[in-house]
Amino acid sequence: MARVLVLTETDLRRIVQLDADAVDCVEQAFAALATKAVEMPPIMRLDIPVHRGEVDVKTAYVPDLDSFAIKVSPGFFNNPSLGLPSTNGLMMLLSAHTGLVEALLLDNGYLTDVRTAAAGAVAARNLARPDARIAAILGAGMQARLQLRALTLVRPIEAARIWARDADKAKQVAAELTAELGFPVSAEADAERACRGADIIVTTTPSDRPILDASWLEPGQHVTAMGSDAEHKNEVDPAAILRAAPYVADSLKQTRRLGELHYAIAAGLVREDVAFPELGAIICGQVAGRQSNQAITLCDLTGTGVQDTAIATLAHRRAIAAGAGQAIETTKASGDPA
Amino acid sequence: MARVLVLTETDLRRIVQLDADAVDCVEQAFAALATKAVEMPPIMRLDIPVHRGEVDVKTAYVPDLDSFAIKVSPGFFNNPSLGLPSTNGLMMLLSAHTGLVEALLLDNGYLTDVRTAAAGAVAARNLARPDARIAAILGAGMQARLQLRALTLVRPIEAARIWARDADKAKQVAAELTAELGFPVSAEADAERACRGADIIVTTTPSDRPILDASWLEPGQHVTAMGSDAEHKNEVDPAAILRAAPYVADSLKQTRRLGELHYAIAAGLVREDVAFPELGAIICGQVAGRQSNQAITLCDLTGTGVQDTAIATLAHRRAIAAGAGQAIETTKASGDPA
Repeated sequence: MARVLVLTETDLRRIVQLDADAVDCVEQAFAALATKAVEMPPIMRLDIPVHRGEVDVKTAYVPDLDSFAIKVSPGFFNNPSLGLPSTNGLMMLLSAHTGLVEALLLDNGYLTDVRTAAAGAVAARNLARPDARIAAILGAGMQARLQLRALTLVRPIEAARIWARDADKAKQVAAELTAELGFPVSAEADAERACRGADIIVTTTPSDRPILDASWLEPGQHVTAMGSDAEHKNEVDPAAILRAAPYVADSLKQTRRLGELHYAIAAGLVREDVAFPELGAIICGQVAGRQSNQAITLCDLTGTGVQDTAIATLAHRRAIAAGAGQAIETTKASGDPA
Repeated sequence: MARVLVLTETDLRRIVQLDADAVDCVEQAFAALATKAVEMPPIMRLDIPVHRGEVDVKTAYVPDLDSFAIKVSPGFFNNPSLGLPSTNGLMMLLSAHTGLVEALLLDNGYLTDVRTAAAGAVAARNLARPDARIAAILGAGMQARLQLRALTLVRPIEAARIWARDADKAKQVAAELTAELGFPVSAEADAERACRGADIIVTTTPSDRPILDASWLEPGQHVTAMGSDAEHKNEVDPAAILRAAPYVADSLKQTRRLGELHYAIAAGLVREDVAFPELGAIICGQVAGRQSNQAITLCDLTGTGVQDTAIATLAHRRAIAAGAGQAIETTKASGDPA
């Protein structure tokens, strides 16, 4: 007799938030990626072009965690015309000892939003100057909001600028975040002006051409590029990779193919086999991160299965503690399909 | 407001059986693979050697089907010592139009058992002699039973022999199948003797070295090899591939890497680029199947995502018609992870 715990988005929003615990659990996941025999197969990708749909499946096994997640992330870009969000999806948590399904997290992408923003906080905590006070956010979507909130968990942010292609949306988001965060968040019509003087720049768009010019970067800045997770996406001028010291990947294997690094390699600026450091190695102190207050650091986030395993494990633990969700009996019968 | 239908193994056993409908739906799936722009990404594989565990994830989008399945199949080989079955897992059914999760099929591998056996029936229906009366089954596990039952759906089977490494198990299964099927099923201690004179031979083991010798094959026989679904597995003597006319793959891309063909290529008997026919092309009449009563035919089944999409779609349709399962509300909130 086995049981599966089913958690809905409503359950999950109640028990998991973008907070210090979420940031810590994602940081530990990156550390495990650098120090343990993590198994993280390549992302599985299914395309359904006729419906402008795509599905990514990610997973990772982290030694010492008793469970591992498998995440299904659909993006269907005709959905808004049907009154539906483009992205949704779910995570499954399986026992690493028996393979039995322990929980189904029907999060519609909520946990991905949280763990993606948490990775931005981890990048800033490990690479931005400790006195970083001014943030520039490029983009005005869900991750624009969340990345700014994530920065406030790890750095003494006092002001922020938001730039987006859609200036009205930038204004609206800036007003909302000012009210929520208690410091001035302004909409900036010019991306360069948004970046000038900022201590941390976060790019959060699905752009397929650079929105951040390398020439804009100033000594001491930290850049987190979190928008690109597919071959065709590119937010950062490839020349910026050369200005960064260090350039840091969440997973080097992935950023060579899916991240900002991809376009620097394609442009012939960087050799494919350069062994850039990964975020986990910096977290663990295996590799130096920022070397001075004058360095420009850049972290390239494509999203990894270890983050999903980390956040799903946290959600499951919290759900059990809170008695949340609905248990479904899933007898394994010994019978056969006659 | 969205709803997900959750179906347990008990629900699914009630509404889906190994019957003519299951065979037809799997046959149509193979036909689609040959004739339509099916999207079937490579199998995702996660290994957890420390717990003798492995997980396969399969998916396929079949044009004209409104949904597609994603299947998670864990195999954890220490489980029997814990009183648990080695294999379990689940399928998800997603809308091909919106990516929304429509159903969670907590089948513990039941639907895989059904669709795998159904593929054996499809292979026999399209490749075995119409008058095939005697079956030889190598192996005595779940698929040994099911493959024999599947053959009875498509050919006038009157007698069968079962061989297995574990002779006692073969005897037990033979006795059970005799009682159930109403024709004599005998246990055979010698694999060659089991095969001699049989019209259809089905290999159903996880063996990593050949259990079927090419020299045993006789004119007119049909062989279905369904046990190998991983690089290290090999049930059929590679020389048998050369005796087969035709050799048929469920998916040529897969059998070159995971099937019996893999070892024939590795042995240098067959060039990697030989364009062997696929089962779907024979079903559709694009390619000739059996050419005479004297031909030896061989079908190499590694298991495909289109089978999963087909059986999950059938199960979902039946569940809706029967009012089976439990609907769970999964509101997509517009809020954010504050």
